[in-house]
Amino acid sequence: MTPTKYAIGVDFGTESGRAVLVDVADGCEVSTAVHLYANGVIDEKLPGTDIRLEPDWALQDPNDYLEVFKMTIPAVLKESGVAPADVIGLGIDFTACTMLPTTTDGTPLCFLPAYRNRPHAWVKLWKHHAAQPEANKINQTAGQKGFNFLERYGGKISSEWFFSKALQILDEDPEIYTAAGRMLEAADWVIWQLTGVETRNSCTAGYKAIWSKREGFPPDAYFKALDPRFEHVVDEKMSRKIASIGEKAGGLTAQAATWTGLLPGTAVAVANVDAHVSVPAATVTEPGRMVIIMGTSNCHMLLGEKELMVPGICGYVEDGIIPGLIGYEAGQSCVGDHFAWFVENCVPAAYEREAQARGVNIHTLLEEKAARLKPGESGLVALDWWNGNRSVLVDVDLTGLLLGATLATKPEEIYRALIEATAYGTRVIIEDFDTHGVPVNEIVATGGLPDKNQLLMQIYADVSGREVKVGAARQTPALGSAMFGAVAAGAAAGGYTSILDASRAMASLRQKTYKPNPDAQKVYDKLYAEYISLHDYFGRGANDVMKRLKAIKAGARK
Amino acid sequence: MTPTKYAIGVDFGTESGRAVLVDVADGCEVSTAVHLYANGVIDEKLPGTDIRLEPDWALQDPNDYLEVFKMTIPAVLKESGVAPADVIGLGIDFTACTMLPTTTDGTPLCFLPAYRNRPHAWVKLWKHHAAQPEANKINQTAGQKGFNFLERYGGKISSEWFFSKALQILDEDPEIYTAAGRMLEAADWVIWQLTGVETRNSCTAGYKAIWSKREGFPPDAYFKALDPRFEHVVDEKMSRKIASIGEKAGGLTAQAATWTGLLPGTAVAVANVDAHVSVPAATVTEPGRMVIIMGTSNCHMLLGEKELMVPGICGYVEDGIIPGLIGYEAGQSCVGDHFAWFVENCVPAAYEREAQARGVNIHTLLEEKAARLKPGESGLVALDWWNGNRSVLVDVDLTGLLLGATLATKPEEIYRALIEATAYGTRVIIEDFDTHGVPVNEIVATGGLPDKNQLLMQIYADVSGREVKVGAARQTPALGSAMFGAVAAGAAAGGYTSILDASRAMASLRQKTYKPNPDAQKVYDKLYAEYISLHDYFGRGANDVMKRLKAIKAGARK
Repeated sequence: MTPTKYAIGVDFGTESGRAVLVDVADGCEVSTAVHLYANGVIDEKLPGTDIRLEPDWALQDPNDYLEVFKMTIPAVLKESGVAPADVIGLGIDFTACTMLPTTTDGTPLCFLPAYRNRPHAWVKLWKHHAAQPEANKINQTAGQKGFNFLERYGGKISSEWFFSKALQILDEDPEIYTAAGRMLEAADWVIWQLTGVETRNSCTAGYKAIWSKREGFPPDAYFKALDPRFEHVVDEKMSRKIASIGEKAGGLTAQAATWTGLLPGTAVAVANVDAHVSVPAATVTEPGRMVIIMGTSNCHMLLGEKELMVPGICGYVEDGIIPGLIGYEAGQSCVGDHFAWFVENCVPAAYEREAQARGVNIHTLLEEKAARLKPGESGLVALDWWNGNRSVLVDVDLTGLLLGATLATKPEEIYRALIEATAYGTRVIIEDFDTHGVPVNEIVATGGLPDKNQLLMQIYADVSGREVKVGAARQTPALGSAMFGAVAAGAAAGGYTSILDASRAMASLRQKTYKPNPDAQKVYDKLYAEYISLHDYFGRGANDVMKRLKAIKAGARK
Repeated sequence: MTPTKYAIGVDFGTESGRAVLVDVADGCEVSTAVHLYANGVIDEKLPGTDIRLEPDWALQDPNDYLEVFKMTIPAVLKESGVAPADVIGLGIDFTACTMLPTTTDGTPLCFLPAYRNRPHAWVKLWKHHAAQPEANKINQTAGQKGFNFLERYGGKISSEWFFSKALQILDEDPEIYTAAGRMLEAADWVIWQLTGVETRNSCTAGYKAIWSKREGFPPDAYFKALDPRFEHVVDEKMSRKIASIGEKAGGLTAQAATWTGLLPGTAVAVANVDAHVSVPAATVTEPGRMVIIMGTSNCHMLLGEKELMVPGICGYVEDGIIPGLIGYEAGQSCVGDHFAWFVENCVPAAYEREAQARGVNIHTLLEEKAARLKPGESGLVALDWWNGNRSVLVDVDLTGLLLGATLATKPEEIYRALIEATAYGTRVIIEDFDTHGVPVNEIVATGGLPDKNQLLMQIYADVSGREVKVGAARQTPALGSAMFGAVAAGAAAGGYTSILDASRAMASLRQKTYKPNPDAQKVYDKLYAEYISLHDYFGRGANDVMKRLKAIKAGARK
């Protein structure tokens, strides 16, 4: 009998990192450990200083990432009793674009005393939003100079992306820009720390750094047009060698082995992104089945065989999710966040008392009350733009709308209307894909919300007219990372030849699925038509009241 | 020295009646007493029976009105120590249209054992909304037959009005209709009980029963077109003799004197309506100054010298408010109700705790927080249609809208946006009057809200661009009724010759007024433009989503 083999996946989130040790044969979780970043999200002042950060800044300390390895991997080994020799591979996933400047040997500039007091020397977290002027310049320049590479991203990129952040460093602290021998994703930096080899993954390169397998990066002439000093950013600070996800980055160094307690040489996979690594972990390795990662926001991942232009999506990348396929990504910027906002700001004290008296949490109480309503019964329809619209309008300046309220409107009716609005937003994305040749036949939900809110799942099924299945893993991204670790190890070591094989063996779905209810579908078809008419009226320029209100607001706060 | 003379005003509200005894010389309140109606608003089942009422029904017991006289007038006499001989006059005001069927001698049909179990034998309260089919028929028939008398009412009348309710009796219980020797306003019925003389006032006749001084009631041919049995409703059940407000109805009967403790023969004024009687009590007896009665809803009263068509207002009536002038009325169906809805349904527990900890009520806390915001700072705009729109769109099927929400939106921002929305709604009404030749130079606010919410007053001034003054009386309608009582008594008895004289002597304004802030006005002009664009888009047929959602809602509840 072959001895049981294990793989470890490490998921780097916004506030913490989590390691999961799984059985390579079936993906079952054996042990897990979490480490909270000591410096968390740095958005007020630089650690150990009184240097205040501007609004919209969000930094991190790369040492916190190393601490995750040092704390969690020994913990999962200890808890499980698994021998290091039986851990055949390790994979990681990260938030993205989360990037940092380092020296040519990979030392973060913020580790150097000379630069420790310089905000631009630190890691820029994905939600660092202070590079909007640079994003605007990147988008405008591409248009003015006739470059078409942004078409792969629905026509424009965000302030969160790699070149926006890199250009902000150059704009605001050119000395840091010059001192940076390398600029890279934190995802790739941690792999460098584990393996001693600088590796750059196709997922972040494609989705966040305007790279494509066929065309590579934008031409130097374009970067020169942004700023002459930026002309050679790729060759000076990055690399044109991009490793496909699914490849092995290298083996664990002796130093990383001492951090983790694993054996030197243990296979380490090329880095990946949390959302993307979840797709095979949710059993999806083929076209036609959309994975929706439902958490604070919704991320929609879909595979296709052909490169097709789908307007208003976040992007598509060959080898971006599964090697050999085009990985399409779309998103909604406010889902769990939306419900959290509602609970914090709009739920009356009487409901809190009722929840306490019954010993349930407020989300459960609201879900119960909302579940008693029939589709259409509230008379409400909302536009789910409390945090702008990511797909398909790609407009951060859109804002929320609630329509249909009366003096009889109850909190649970508003709550349900907000859930329904996010479901309509998902249907817009699905129909956009369908119309442009990338079919969606079924939905697989993962993330924090599916297990918390069955009403939400049923509404998504009823509104989309698609069956909604739920990924079985408790920690989907970490499982996905472990799967890629098993692929990096290879079949000979007890792992797998491909992520397809790994997914078939290690990923699974819950038995309970959500099928569309035909009566509910009929009502939701009518409500969706109303949503679309409001979506297009307010979102496509007929009435730009939302933008004008934002301008008035900006003026009022001066 | 002339001995001090007094007058009593009795204000019949929805839940209770209130008597106020005032000094005729200066209107100062000497004593007051309230009596809660024993049967309150009857909207579930008939008192003493298991007979359930349909939705939208709202009845009252006329005996409760008599109890108000019996309980409150002796109480104010006793509390004040005023001698009955020094009370020179009595006036009353009532909700309207609140109507009932009686025998020819004025006995309510619901007092008769034969009819006590018949819902249609009882008083139909102003907010009885079950006569919508009849209102529709009244409006449609007038249009089809080419009658133009509804133009005085913005083109259509409401289910609340007199003929809607009378026709519902005929439709649903023809036996009650036949048994009714008289059908009349409760306002006129209580005057009948006090004086022994059936009198009908020009205010309710004009505003609620399609009567005008020049044209009288609609022609019999019109009533016949509604229903052949309804042809002679005016001559059979009502009266063509309409007394102007400001006239004396008669003297107190011996029986009414025993109820009240006043002297037989004490002058009693023609009945009036709560909102309308408030106008002279708020110092307004001339054109150009709009009185807004701000309570659960807003009622806008304005005087003019000429009969002008102002589209979408509730109506205009010669002698309806002040004898000799045209009284214009418009309204907003949801103001205080709106804020109450918000507080009940949308204020989080944390705010309730904060209010408790600081020992203030939640409205005060919200007002404080909202007052710290600058105009435009919330980025929100709302349509104040939570209870439909009374003026100028006259559409009960419109519903509420909130636009501009983000994840940073706070409860106080929504609260302020709702206040602002009602101010925009008032500005629409003001501009409608102004545009059509009835100028509004200044606002005088009365009712429950002005003293409770200074922020509200300032926002009305800033949004409307008019100075807002506040009536000084604590009980404005009751003071107005007492003033009319003093006019009914006449100058010889120590009262006044006209309501103008009474108003000059007895009504006054608060010293504190609210002047528009020019900076705030500029921002509100921009926000008002956005409100108008949404108001017209959703209210004038470009997108009837609100009506369609109501239809879907009605279908869902079946």
